[in-house]
Amino acid sequence: MNFIKMQGLGNDFIFIIDKEENYLKDEIEIAKKVCNRRFGIGADGLVIIRNSDIADAKMIIINSDGSKANMCGNAIRCFAKYLYEEGIVKKKNITIETGDGVKISELFINKDDKVDLVRVNMGKPSFKGVDIKLNNKDKLIDEVVEINNKRYKLTSLLMGVPHTILINNNNEYSMEDGKIIEKYDLFKENTNVNLVKIYNKESIEVRTWERGAGATLACGTGCCASLVALNKLGLCESKAKITTLGGNLIVEIVNDDVFMTGEATFICSGVVLN
Amino acid sequence: MNFIKMQGLGNDFIFIIDKEENYLKDEIEIAKKVCNRRFGIGADGLVIIRNSDIADAKMIIINSDGSKANMCGNAIRCFAKYLYEEGIVKKKNITIETGDGVKISELFINKDDKVDLVRVNMGKPSFKGVDIKLNNKDKLIDEVVEINNKRYKLTSLLMGVPHTILINNNNEYSMEDGKIIEKYDLFKENTNVNLVKIYNKESIEVRTWERGAGATLACGTGCCASLVALNKLGLCESKAKITTLGGNLIVEIVNDDVFMTGEATFICSGVVLN
Repeated sequence: MNFIKMQGLGNDFIFIIDKEENYLKDEIEIAKKVCNRRFGIGADGLVIIRNSDIADAKMIIINSDGSKANMCGNAIRCFAKYLYEEGIVKKKNITIETGDGVKISELFINKDDKVDLVRVNMGKPSFKGVDIKLNNKDKLIDEVVEINNKRYKLTSLLMGVPHTILINNNNEYSMEDGKIIEKYDLFKENTNVNLVKIYNKESIEVRTWERGAGATLACGTGCCASLVALNKLGLCESKAKITTLGGNLIVEIVNDDVFMTGEATFICSGVVLN
Repeated sequence: MNFIKMQGLGNDFIFIIDKEENYLKDEIEIAKKVCNRRFGIGADGLVIIRNSDIADAKMIIINSDGSKANMCGNAIRCFAKYLYEEGIVKKKNITIETGDGVKISELFINKDDKVDLVRVNMGKPSFKGVDIKLNNKDKLIDEVVEINNKRYKLTSLLMGVPHTILINNNNEYSMEDGKIIEKYDLFKENTNVNLVKIYNKESIEVRTWERGAGATLACGTGCCASLVALNKLGLCESKAKITTLGGNLIVEIVNDDVFMTGEATFICSGVVLN
């Protein structure tokens, strides 16, 4: 089985092409095996490239634990670069079918015909309590809640998945607070938590505690949600540079849609031997 | 740059061949880059295969943090399998130059000309305090020491590196105890710590806390040291099956030499793209 390993913001994926639907019989077992970091190649997830009836290609993401992901901002940038540079879809605007609908990715191509950056429409955010799955509450915007005798001023929204933003300009909070907020009973299905530092109105830093996964180097939807929240609170412009431990992104709100622009990188190509 | 990824007991390595000495100019930087688990291929270490004037081949091991390792039991089994199956050294007894001298590896080859198991002479153990770098003590064999008001019955020996054995038949100890014993001031250069469970005189389980690295799936020299210690205490035969979280080994004492037999596995082959 041939593969390519890629990463976006330190979120790494093994890509394989499934030319015929169901050519890969047991994709969940394959994902667990190849993603294992010591007994396999090692990655956060397996991405399968399939034909699509409604878009240029279809993206299937299976996490290293075998669970399926509908969509991932870091994976889709890699996916678009892969399609273009491997000559599978030679267009500057590539449509990709995901578990969260068809996404459009715009490629920034350099003079060597390589993809420098990928811009993805990540969809529309929602501040509605029913979308975030809040317990008996219609919204949570810039509101103080008390958890374990500690006070947090929180803003929550759905950006593909539920995200909660906590401003951390003076380093008063840590990932430990993220862990506590994740499971606060206001959130029926838990929440991702983003600790945000505002450098200025066009530049912020985001550290994300991912629901079920813990501290990560970077989270694409978390970066988008953070800018949307700060923009709503009047603390950021509608476009800003986002700094993460895994690298940088540009996030921009255009009308109601959120666009994310960032890099994707090839690591290695090869053949699975066992 | 071409590579092969292999593992032994869950200890994983990226192998590259350096045909001409110093063809790889900056091997430490290469190791840090390719071993990075999110921005690179991902492994515990980079193994470079070089020509040797005194053996069939020379093994250079650089850990993922850029430090050099003289010798590694899990890496050398992979190394021997690689040399044989890739047709570089087509012998059943292969000599390998390491930072700890020339090691002889014996290959168990199946009818498909594949290497099932590799047996390596890991050298002679030493119970001398001066070899283990004990502080003002000539040995530590089955002796109770008290650290932070907790009592531990310990046996220490040099098996390539310093190892301390703690019998844990009733699960009364955990890796946290390993962490404490590692830095006990009796050990001038710290010690690896092995929690050992005796199933019977020919079968034991070993969990190793590695000096500077923490809890690991398996440690080849730790398995050897554990059997040597238990054999000295009359609790094991001179040959036993060792169970670890990463897989199994057979360890055997013949005269004064310790032999370790176990598997090695190819994971993938490929080309580094960035």
